[in-house]
Amino acid sequence: MQSLDDLKTALRAFAAERDWDQFHSAKNLAMAISIESAELMEHFQWASEQQDVALDARRREMVSDELADVFMYTVRLADRLGIDLLVASTAKIAKNAARYPADKVRGQAKKYSEY
Amino acid sequence: MQSLDDLKTALRAFAAERDWDQFHSAKNLAMAISIESAELMEHFQWASEQQDVALDARRREMVSDELADVFMYTVRLADRLGIDLLVASTAKIAKNAARYPADKVRGQAKKYSEY
Amino acid sequence: MQSLDDLKTALRAFAAERDWDQFHSAKNLAMAISIESAELMEHFQWASEQQDVALDARRREMVSDELADVFMYTVRLADRLGIDLLVASTAKIAKNAARYPADKVRGQAKKYSEY
Amino acid sequence: MQSLDDLKTALRAFAAERDWDQFHSAKNLAMAISIESAELMEHFQWASEQQDVALDARRREMVSDELADVFMYTVRLADRLGIDLLVASTAKIAKNAARYPADKVRGQAKKYSEY
Repeated sequence: MQSLDDLKTALRAFAAERDWDQFHSAKNLAMAISIESAELMEHFQWASEQQDVALDARRREMVSDELADVFMYTVRLADRLGIDLLVASTAKIAKNAARYPADKVRGQAKKYSEY
Repeated sequence: MQSLDDLKTALRAFAAERDWDQFHSAKNLAMAISIESAELMEHFQWASEQQDVALDARRREMVSDELADVFMYTVRLADRLGIDLLVASTAKIAKNAARYPADKVRGQAKKYSEY
Repeated sequence: MQSLDDLKTALRAFAAERDWDQFHSAKNLAMAISIESAELMEHFQWASEQQDVALDARRREMVSDELADVFMYTVRLADRLGIDLLVASTAKIAKNAARYPADKVRGQAKKYSEY
Repeated sequence: MQSLDDLKTALRAFAAERDWDQFHSAKNLAMAISIESAELMEHFQWASEQQDVALDARRREMVSDELADVFMYTVRLADRLGIDLLVASTAKIAKNAARYPADKVRGQAKKYSEY
């Protein structure tokens, strides 16, 4: 696959071949994203923040699989809702830039966490 | 932005301008994905499964923003770990195809949930 | 165990015997609650809302274990932060009662989801 | 409230007065626990592990409210499923004790994370 569009098409085919569209309500897909993201997080749960990029090959493959799961369910839900993820991301980055001006929040976790 | 690579580059720049790389440990990014996915899910929490694609314009923008947040943190964590999301997805789809053969699981939620 | 206090004491002992207090930062415990809650949710992911209380014995034990995990990490984090869960719950119920007056929200999911 | 049973009774009354039992399917309650646990986790997202118990009064109240939300939805789901949380916790602690013998895992995060 070369692009997000290729992935979207592949995921549509995967679901269609299994007649799984009936289970892929927005509600269920949102749950799936949340569940997979927790499985991803689990790999880093007890690690110190320094350790967390030193993954051995086996752990790395597990993390890669979980990342792919989160990513694919996100692409699938966006497809179902007719939302273009690159357009949505561009819009959100513009909002974030206005909310967190670089010269005001530089290097500050405290500012960052005031939501 | 035209591609995932463009987004990856934009997110690197956004963090660099704010000196936020120090907060973007894999552990923290995985937490961020999980938190944003819960905010996304919240929009569908009390909806019936039938209602869930009928979003009015205001709700649609909120959902779009949350989808973008999940998506961008996923792209960011993959970048930090040096994982290519399209490659990872291709590999995971192959595993899923072997695990859920179309002719065995077609239309079955029960089979689908046996993990 | 007869009470929440008994459970709090048992969890303290369990961690102390294993020298695990060092891993039980508030941050890590909050992550643990979130991870366990996703594992709990996974059991209901593909179920319709009608099916969801018909658990066979094996599934029921799994759900019971996940519920216990969420519950115990919640008790543990509250203990670490010096928060009394029954007092906190009483205070939150009072806030919820003011926010959702019974005569205004009765039977309404829409009202319920306007947050 | 003096006990878990008091809380269970109060939560039943709260839902009954609002005719909300119809929304409290196990699936929806499990989602609610997961959403509230993410809101709880958000308070610790960018904190270092050392900072995380130094909460000012305002933050402390917010954390207390989120802990209460997780706790109350957990009590509510257990009630709906007819599961006694103290019994379930006792059973799970026994399993954990067998899985993580104190003399084998003492002080080890690595062992702890091998799941």
